[in-house]
Formats: sequence, structure tokens, C-alpha cells
Amino acid sequence: MPGNSFGQAFRYTTWGESHGPAIGCVIDGVPPGMPLSEADIQPWLDRRRPGQSRHTTQRQEPDKARLLSGVFEGLTTGTPISFVVENQDVRSKDYDAIKDKFRPGHAEYAYWKKYGHYDTRGGGRSSARETAMRVAAGAVARKVLNHLLEAPVTIRGGLVQMGPHAIERARWDWAEVENNPFWCPDPEAAKAWEGFLDEVRKAGSSTGAVIEVTAAGVPAGLGEPVYDKLDADLAKAMMSINAVKSVEIGAGLSAAALSGEDNADEMRMAGEDVEFLSNNAGGVLGGISTGQDVVVRFAVKPTSSILTPRKTVDRFGQNTEISTKGRHDPCVGIRAVPIGEAMMAIVLADHLLRQRAQCG
Amino acid sequence: MPGNSFGQAFRYTTWGESHGPAIGCVIDGVPPGMPLSEADIQPWLDRRRPGQSRHTTQRQEPDKARLLSGVFEGLTTGTPISFVVENQDVRSKDYDAIKDKFRPGHAEYAYWKKYGHYDTRGGGRSSARETAMRVAAGAVARKVLNHLLEAPVTIRGGLVQMGPHAIERARWDWAEVENNPFWCPDPEAAKAWEGFLDEVRKAGSSTGAVIEVTAAGVPAGLGEPVYDKLDADLAKAMMSINAVKSVEIGAGLSAAALSGEDNADEMRMAGEDVEFLSNNAGGVLGGISTGQDVVVRFAVKPTSSILTPRKTVDRFGQNTEISTKGRHDPCVGIRAVPIGEAMMAIVLADHLLRQRAQCG
Amino acid sequence: MPGNSFGQAFRYTTWGESHGPAIGCVIDGVPPGMPLSEADIQPWLDRRRPGQSRHTTQRQEPDKARLLSGVFEGLTTGTPISFVVENQDVRSKDYDAIKDKFRPGHAEYAYWKKYGHYDTRGGGRSSARETAMRVAAGAVARKVLNHLLEAPVTIRGGLVQMGPHAIERARWDWAEVENNPFWCPDPEAAKAWEGFLDEVRKAGSSTGAVIEVTAAGVPAGLGEPVYDKLDADLAKAMMSINAVKSVEIGAGLSAAALSGEDNADEMRMAGEDVEFLSNNAGGVLGGISTGQDVVVRFAVKPTSSILTPRKTVDRFGQNTEISTKGRHDPCVGIRAVPIGEAMMAIVLADHLLRQRAQCG
Amino acid sequence: MPGNSFGQAFRYTTWGESHGPAIGCVIDGVPPGMPLSEADIQPWLDRRRPGQSRHTTQRQEPDKARLLSGVFEGLTTGTPISFVVENQDVRSKDYDAIKDKFRPGHAEYAYWKKYGHYDTRGGGRSSARETAMRVAAGAVARKVLNHLLEAPVTIRGGLVQMGPHAIERARWDWAEVENNPFWCPDPEAAKAWEGFLDEVRKAGSSTGAVIEVTAAGVPAGLGEPVYDKLDADLAKAMMSINAVKSVEIGAGLSAAALSGEDNADEMRMAGEDVEFLSNNAGGVLGGISTGQDVVVRFAVKPTSSILTPRKTVDRFGQNTEISTKGRHDPCVGIRAVPIGEAMMAIVLADHLLRQRAQCG
Repeated sequence: MPGNSFGQAFRYTTWGESHGPAIGCVIDGVPPGMPLSEADIQPWLDRRRPGQSRHTTQRQEPDKARLLSGVFEGLTTGTPISFVVENQDVRSKDYDAIKDKFRPGHAEYAYWKKYGHYDTRGGGRSSARETAMRVAAGAVARKVLNHLLEAPVTIRGGLVQMGPHAIERARWDWAEVENNPFWCPDPEAAKAWEGFLDEVRKAGSSTGAVIEVTAAGVPAGLGEPVYDKLDADLAKAMMSINAVKSVEIGAGLSAAALSGEDNADEMRMAGEDVEFLSNNAGGVLGGISTGQDVVVRFAVKPTSSILTPRKTVDRFGQNTEISTKGRHDPCVGIRAVPIGEAMMAIVLADHLLRQRAQCG
Repeated sequence: MPGNSFGQAFRYTTWGESHGPAIGCVIDGVPPGMPLSEADIQPWLDRRRPGQSRHTTQRQEPDKARLLSGVFEGLTTGTPISFVVENQDVRSKDYDAIKDKFRPGHAEYAYWKKYGHYDTRGGGRSSARETAMRVAAGAVARKVLNHLLEAPVTIRGGLVQMGPHAIERARWDWAEVENNPFWCPDPEAAKAWEGFLDEVRKAGSSTGAVIEVTAAGVPAGLGEPVYDKLDADLAKAMMSINAVKSVEIGAGLSAAALSGEDNADEMRMAGEDVEFLSNNAGGVLGGISTGQDVVVRFAVKPTSSILTPRKTVDRFGQNTEISTKGRHDPCVGIRAVPIGEAMMAIVLADHLLRQRAQCG
Repeated sequence: MPGNSFGQAFRYTTWGESHGPAIGCVIDGVPPGMPLSEADIQPWLDRRRPGQSRHTTQRQEPDKARLLSGVFEGLTTGTPISFVVENQDVRSKDYDAIKDKFRPGHAEYAYWKKYGHYDTRGGGRSSARETAMRVAAGAVARKVLNHLLEAPVTIRGGLVQMGPHAIERARWDWAEVENNPFWCPDPEAAKAWEGFLDEVRKAGSSTGAVIEVTAAGVPAGLGEPVYDKLDADLAKAMMSINAVKSVEIGAGLSAAALSGEDNADEMRMAGEDVEFLSNNAGGVLGGISTGQDVVVRFAVKPTSSILTPRKTVDRFGQNTEISTKGRHDPCVGIRAVPIGEAMMAIVLADHLLRQRAQCG
Repeated sequence: MPGNSFGQAFRYTTWGESHGPAIGCVIDGVPPGMPLSEADIQPWLDRRRPGQSRHTTQRQEPDKARLLSGVFEGLTTGTPISFVVENQDVRSKDYDAIKDKFRPGHAEYAYWKKYGHYDTRGGGRSSARETAMRVAAGAVARKVLNHLLEAPVTIRGGLVQMGPHAIERARWDWAEVENNPFWCPDPEAAKAWEGFLDEVRKAGSSTGAVIEVTAAGVPAGLGEPVYDKLDADLAKAMMSINAVKSVEIGAGLSAAALSGEDNADEMRMAGEDVEFLSNNAGGVLGGISTGQDVVVRFAVKPTSSILTPRKTVDRFGQNTEISTKGRHDPCVGIRAVPIGEAMMAIVLADHLLRQRAQCG
């Protein structure tokens, strides 16, 4: 009933606050006999790590994950895997000035209404710091997928829109996402965004974004109708990421405007295999993977921590104004890319294990 | 691990196939001492019932739900509530011609890949017939909300886009949704849609739609971070409905294009209460309700059952064509309105009970 | 969070009251492609059915289970399986006289304290009538075990003690359990019990019993440490049966008195296989099956429905006396035998599916 | 589906191996606003800590728990609480000699069959070292009970049988459990056990025991029929403790021999309250607490780690013998007392929160 765990068969739980002593996660259900070490996790944490370019928060966290259980002589034992990351660059004082005021659009008002008492330092539990542990769990999930499946599953994400500026899909090149600080698959859009984001940052403002994550090589058959459908769990996974406001599968929102003829992904045999002539479905039919690429897109709102003063209230029921001076991401969507990839891996690993239970 | 249940504290399970002898649901966790009878459920089932206008499938199902347990002397006892609806107007023969072919965009190919063996009659378990039981569970959930809360929760849904034709939000009038066969809050749009949908139907085609559901009167504090957030569970609930391809909360996808200044919902005191000057958040911050209206929007793709022949394959690995002649909805989005309302009620009831567990 | 479901991968939910219109269960997670029909279930329901000898309640229930979903053309489809049994021989009037009084030792006082409002007819939800659906689910679980495993699993139960009278273990003969109305594996004990139970019944009294259930052919490896151990789940399953007051695994309580030397089940190779020289462990080590017979024993208290007046109180806070005149089992332990077998099958099927998820 | 978590509303997960770098637990669902610090936990860990008398293992572990999340300014925030304990006195070399042989009665054979690969040092995950985290979670659960309830819940445990030597119930004195190294409520039995256990230890043997745990002050109404009954969850909780082979509630096994008249706990009014004239039920009727003391008893087998050589096999399928020379408890039942108390507290806290969800 409490909500800090995700998944059923590949099940993980995260804990920790932004400015607490440490954060961590426990992953239960990992198959035994799989090679695993801290070195498998660190590169993924590094991708999400703040402070790597001028476009993300300047908080400096080495994010070194200690692997404390579940592995013996380099192989998983099937028992819980625990990661702990000590927090380092904590400047709680930044938050003293605003600790009794609510940032419009920030979680703290809702935490206050729900729990009465909450950690006011750096967003506490509601901080995106928690997502570091999603990335750790996602790294394990990727290993599980590739350990169990004959052919590799390739999970990739990219920023496809920053503020009002979308990429040109015709220029999509996965290789480009590693060449710019935005994980953008369109090199020209990336170039344009540099200037846009510099302006946003200098203005003390923030901007939203859209992220697209795809998984290639997913076997057909994953997903548990009629409630734990693969797309339903992906929607939940992505919507649970901080600041996400929409989730789309395949054609997504644009499917509403299509006719049945245009939307139907026609099928042909290609040797022994079925080939689809389009992928409006985003790789999921009836909540079950079809073997096509699984395609998810989600929108991230602009962060509520901005310099421009906004009208708000405080804990004492007084009208006031607030402007946030701490270290923040002008576009939180950038760092949402590796998080979205991680959640994709987690959902797929969970459903792969679940599929084995019922269908072998 | 299997997927036919939803919710944690208000937990229900549905069963049954489109052309099987009956469908049903079991609801566990309903508070005791609440008045409940079949008469509380039937009006909501009637709203979803097919065959009520020329714009929906002509299958005639009285959808009379028998209440078989969990109520004694007119009051719930806290034990499971079971509903059973016998299927009546089953024309399985309609499906004989296509039982070995896969409709592009339909769940049956995926069921075949997952389960090997599936019910070929009328979509079997993947049919939207299952949603009748969501509506039954939703009717109980509404009663739970209003039984437990001092002020009523008002859940309303409307069709805000049909195919490429969106409503004019300035004309929004909730009273209008009962005045047209589309649950459309904009009377002029509704009028235009009549002709559009007649054409779609006559062409043997189908069209997508967008549905918006709002809940007013939701208390602040519902939602369980960081995975079972209220918006994450709403996303899962809506995405689990047949044919849904996107889910948005509040400003949704359009939040990506906003600046932090424009997106922030400023706050003022209004007497003792906090008032928000806008609702881009859709009533949810940090995954927790704030007391504002909870606003969800989802897109439904056009049904895959169309007359125009489409390229496909059959179970034997042969290329072929298919056109579907059975009774179908030209716009499945219409009947998704009461289903979306039901899922909203279910998610809210579930989270209200969960909130009581931890926070009293 | 509510409690009317059991199992994780083989998950079932029961519903219904003793004197309501019907009882039923929904089973989710059954592998697809398995032959299943009503005829597979009925023999097991018949074993538990009341009114078959003078030693059990005279309530006459045909207990005909309708199979309403999850099977197509004789094979399971992997979707939920629903059984409904209509109640027939309901004499609610028997309970009118005592509806405001609490039978000492009966659940109704606790239901009243918990729920405030409860079904007073025949025990309502707390009645052992619910166990008919455990037997139905158990019948499906047996089929699952034998469908998935190469070698059959044989689950058998017997009454090993009635009141103070235990069987002689040296005379144990499984064939005998079908030859007497007590499922007793010791024919001489069974003979003695006839007279004992006639006296109990004639005196309007009741007596307790001990049941032993074993499963042979269980593969090694089932059980999920450290909380969902096989023996922990068996303990829960058996303790959840009406009137059960103790559960033992293998040597059970008597293990406390043993030395480490005597308790250790020594091991030898027998060809390729490991052979244990004793089975104090009851087939479970560290919460995981070893391949030995899984052995569970549980004690059932005497029913609280007796003719002798007992001191009690009523709903209005008055002291009073009660004697129960309805139809009851003088030894509810007898009918607990098929129920214990069913729960064994359910726990094993659930853990077999769970094992497949993580360990393949 | 994996098994390293317990509870639904008060839900905790443990991780870590006997000789790994650390062990820990995460507790989710703790109500906000409750005072909590490391000082609340340490005394309970100290009670379970090894090496405190000559009668328990000589492994020296300070068992200092770091509290890493979920508390802000001394009060819980409703977010997950994480404890980590670093392992210190690890002598893995003790196990080298036997790492390929299976101790009869020990979990390692079953782990080998299930997982293929397991941690051979000191029992790995199957070690009773994990129970330190049960005690930490239990300490939090006690605080939750007393934070939420008006009257305190008093949970106490005692050793009531060591090997074949039971206490005299007439001499029961709770104050005595703190006066001897066995948590024995009968001072004369405790005295006799000293000599008995010295002999057992000197012989390199081991002995079983029986523990009884009671909870006074439990409100009526806790427990979720028909599967998550309070006694069913207690049975699971206790049976999940290492080496436990039986669980009894109230009269337990002896209820089988009683008549209905003798077993019924008669009721009288005592002012406004209901008073029971006996407690054969152990405080639970129909799976729901009645307000009487909740009474649970469980038997612990003698540890399998003994000096006397026993016949066994090794990983290579060879017959061999084994005798265990590491540091072990001659009577593991002693340290099971605080663990049983902890599990009682956990089950009660979980059901108290669950009760609030449905029944307020």
C-alpha cells in the first residue's frame, strides 16, 4: 500500500531524501547466476549525474554506488541487491529562506497537506535526486534482459522537444544523442537549443521538454491484460517520474485524429517472421508486446524553481511571493532521458519475468 | 502477478469474455455499513451500454448486473462484492470468417503470441465488453467516495475531440454532455460530429477521439509517492482501457512548451482556503492531490475493425487481407467516456482508502 | 490490502456468504493451453460436500460449480477462471433466535467489532461454506501442477486425531482414507471414532481434530526466502482455514525436544539422486522444498455451535446464554481434510509459477 | 513475487548476507509525525545481539544501526525508513572446509537446488543474521502501535520449553524473563536449563525450544478475513523465522483434544466491556482480534550446525560426512524470543494500518 516500490517480479524499492545522509535502493527478484558488479551500474549513474554541463544543476555528486548484497563471487545469488549512495554536495542552507513558503507547482505544498511534516531541504523525498536509484535499478534491469534473452534488447532515449522547439524527425540519428548535452537525436535542433537554453538559464527561468524512449528487440508476448498491460505499466512508470505530465505510446495523441485505415499497422510475412508496415501501435497491442519497437513519449513540465517572483502562500496562511535561488536545472527534461530509459528497462524486465511465470 | 485486478485498498478483479456465458467482477475492500443495491449500479451500466444510438455498436445487451455478495439488509458488510452479468446477444458466427486472420491493430495477434491459445469470438478477453465491469466497479467507487467524504466528489467526463475535430473550450458546458449522443460539452461541436460520424460509419471506417475526465471536490493528500503517485495510477488506469494511446494530466503535453513562469499555478489565500490561480498541474503536485480539480485527458485510437480490406497475415504464416463485418463502434471513444469516469472514481477511492491507512 | 485473495502468481479470490444467493471464486494466473472443464472440479467439490454421512452437517448442497470464463474449446486461455455455485439449502430462520447473541468461540463477535454490520445468517462470510471455493481453486491448482511438471505431484490428506484419540502411525495406509467417513488412514482408529463421534453428536457437543496433508513428487527449489518461504506460506494457508489453531511442518512441535543429532535428516546418494534418511524437515529447508515429501499437520478446534448452553453476551451489552440448534458438523475437522489438500495444491502451484519467474 | 518483503501497509524489505559488507532494511508506510531515532532501535537490537552470554554464539557484532532516511527533525515524514548495519566480526574462513558439503537440516542444500549459485559464507542469506533487521523493523512497529493507539500494546516473549524441558506455567512471572539468559518466565526452569545447555554445548550438540509471545492491549477488529486473517499472518510471520517448525494460536494443538464446551471462551459483561472467562482462542476469532491477549507459540528445531559427524553428500554427488566447527548457538531458540516479539509487533502494526484503510 505505501508507494515506494515498483514492479511485481523484478521489484525494487527506493529510499532517501535529497539532503539526507544517503539514498539507496533494494532490488528483489533478480535471477541468480548473472554477472554483476558496481562497474555495471556506474556508467548509467554517470549519465544522469548532475553538473556535467552548464545546462544542468551545478550540484556536484559523484554518485558512487556501493553494492552491498545479492552478489557472491561476481554472480547474483537471487537474493536482494542493495545499492547505497552517500550524499555529498548538500547545501541545505539554500532552502532556509523559503522553507515556510510553497513554490507554485512544486510538490512541497502537497506533501505538507498529506503528511503534515516533511523534509524541507532540497525537496526532501520529492526531489529528483531519488531518480538516481531508478537509474541504478534500470542498469540491473538491462542486464537481466540481456542475460535472459537470446537477442539483445536495445533501449535508447532522446530529447525530441525543448520548450516549443521540436526536432525534425527526418534528421533523426541515434548516434547524435551522445554528441550534444541534450541527448538530442537531431544535431541541428541541438545546436539551436544551446542558445535557447542559455537564454532561459540567464533569465532564471525554466522550460519543459518531450522525451522519447524506444526499445528494440523486445520479444512478443510481454504484458498482462487487462490491467497490468505493458503500455499501462509504461504509462505509470513514466508518469511517476518527477515533473512528467503526459505519456504517449506509438502514435499517441495523434492517433485520435487518424482513421481506422491510416492507423492500422498492416502486416506481411518476411520469411518466417511477421513484419509490420508501420508502428502506430508503438509495439503494443491489447497491452501485449508484438515484437515491434516499443515506443514511449513523455512530456516534462518546466521546473517550478525559478528566479522570477511568483505569488504564493506560506504555511501560516499568509499571501506572499517566492523566487528560488538554489541550484536547479533550467530544463529538467534533459536528465529525464536516462531516467526514462531506466524505467523502460525496469518495466520490460518485470514483464519478462512475469511472462515466464504464467507462460513459461 | 497476473493482471486482472486493479487497486490496492479498493481492489477489484474482473473476469469474462465477450462471447462467454457471463462477465463479472469482485470488489474487495469496500467499507462496511454503506448502502448499496443493484439500483445503484444499473444507471452507470446503462450509460455505457451499447446499442443506444446509431453511433455505437448495435449489439443489444441489457447488462443487468446481479449483486451476489457483500451486502446484508441493504448495507455493505466489508466482505467482497460480486457482480455477474449474463451475456445475451452473442453472435459468434460473425467471427468465424476471420478467426484465423489477425486484424491489424487488434489485440488478437498479441494474444496469440503470448498465450498460444485464445478465445477468437468477438475479441474474447480483449474485447471492450470487459469495461462493463469497470463501470460497475466505478459505480461502487463513487459511492465509497461520497460515503466517506463530507463534501461530494463530482466526476464528469466529456468527448473533447472526435477524429481531427476538437471542441471549442470557450463553449464548454457540462450540462450539454447529456444532450447529445457523444457526451460532448460543446453543443456546436456535437452537431458537427453527427455528420462526420455518419460518414465514417457509412464508409465502414472508424475514427479516434479524445476524452477528458475531471473530478471536483477531491481532498488534498491523495497519492502515494514516489511510484504510486495519484497521476501515475491515473495514467495506468486510463492506459489500461482498450484502445487508449495517450494520457495527460492538466496541461499535459502542452506543458512541455511552457516557461516556468507560465506553468506555475500561483496561489492565494481565499479566506481559510488556498486558491490556485490556474490549474496547469491538473490537481496533482508531486503525485499528490492538492484540492484542485483533478483533470485527465486520454486519446483513443480508431478501432481496428473496419470494412476496408487491409493487408495482414494469418495463423499459418500466409499473407492475406482482412475486412471486418461484425457489429462495431465507428468511434469507440464515445463509450470510453463513462469508462474513463469509472476509472477516475476507482483510482480516487483506492487512494482515499490508502491515505487513511498511513495518515489516518 | 483487503484479505479475500490468496497467492501471488496463482492468485485466486473468493466471494459469497453462507446464506447469500451464491458463492464463487476467480482464479488468475493459470497457464494457457491446459485442458479444464467443470468435470475436473466437481469430484473435489463432492469430497467436501456436506450431508454425505451422519457425521457431517445435514445441509444439502449439490455444489454444482459453473465455469464461466477462461476456457475456450476445452483449454485454458490464460485469462481469469470464474466459478459460481448457487446456494440452495439455506435455512436462515435457524439463526433468527440467536442473531443478537454471540456464540462463544465463533467469529461473529469479532466481525461485529470490526465491521459493525455483518451477515447474521449461518455465519455469513465467516462460514466454512467459503471453503467450497478453496476446493474448486485447489482442483485447478492440482491440474496446473500436473500440467507443468513431468512427474505427477500426489497430494493426500488424512485425519490423524479426533478429539483425544490419535491414530497409530504404524498402521498408516493411504488406501484406507477412502474406506471410512473420516478420511482416516488407520482403519482401527476409524472404527473407534464412529462410536466416539456418535456420542459427541448425540450429546449436541463437538470435538476437535488433527489433519495431516502430504505432497509427494514436489520438485526441489520451491519457496521464496526469507518471508514467502514455502513453509511460511503453508502455515498461512492452513491457519486461514476456519477453526485451525496450529500448523506444523514435518516433526513440527516435537522438533523442540530433539537434539541436533536426532533432528538432522542425513543424506546419501542413491544413484544420481539425493536420498534423505529421515524427514523431520517435512520436505522444506530454509523455506525451500528439497524434493522430499512436503508434510503439514494442523489442528482444528471443536466448533462453537453446540447444544449445551454457554454464558455469553448480546449486541446490547447484556449477559445471556446461548445454545445453537442449527445444522452443524460435530467434528469440522473431517471436512477440513479436502480443504487442507486444496490449500497444499494452491501453495505449491503458486510457488511453482513464482519459481519459474525468477529461476526459469 | 520475490519474497524479501513482509506486510502490506506497514511493509518492510530486508537485504544482506551473513558475511557480506552490511545488512539493512527499508520500512515503508510508517505514519508521519512520529518521533523516531536510532536510540529507539538500538535497545531492541541489543537484546537479539549475539555473544552476550556463554549460551549463544560468540560472534561479536555491535549491531549499530544507522538510520538513513524517513526522519526529519526527529519526526517521521511518512517516507521510507532505511536502516543499515555494517557487518564486523566475519570469519568466512570457518566455512571453507565445508563449503562444498551440505549440513543435514541446513538451508544450503535447498538454496543450491533453487538458485544454483549461493553465498557459502556463514549461511549467506539463509543465516539468522537477517533477523537483526526484523528486530529493527519490529522496534519501529512497536512505536507505530503506541503512537496510534490510545492505550499501549505490551508485547512480551519468553522461552517456555528447552529441549524436552518445559516450564511450569503456574510459576509464570513476566518479570523473570529479564533475570536469566534464556528469557524464561519460570525461574526454576531457567536454573535447570543452565546445566542442561552447558552439557549440550560441551557435547557440541544443539537443542530445540518453544517460544511464547503475547500481546496485551490489542484492540478488537484487527485481521482481514478470509485469507489475511490475523492468526494466518502471525503463522506466516513466525514460520518465516529461521528454524521454526510449528506455530500455535492460543490453545493451539491442544484444542484438538477439547470438547466444544471446554474450548468455548465464555463471555460476560464487565461494566461496559466484554470479558472472556478463558482464552483458548488466543485472542483471535474468525481471524480477527477480539481484544483479548493475542497468544502465539512456536517451536524451533535444534540447529544443524553440530560437532558430531553426520552423513551427507557434497556438491559433486559424493557421499561424505560433515561436522561443523564454526561459532553457533547451542539453542537458537533463545535468540528467537526477541525475533518473535518483533514479528508480533510487525503483524499487529500492519493490520492496524490495514484496518484504518477499510474501517477507519
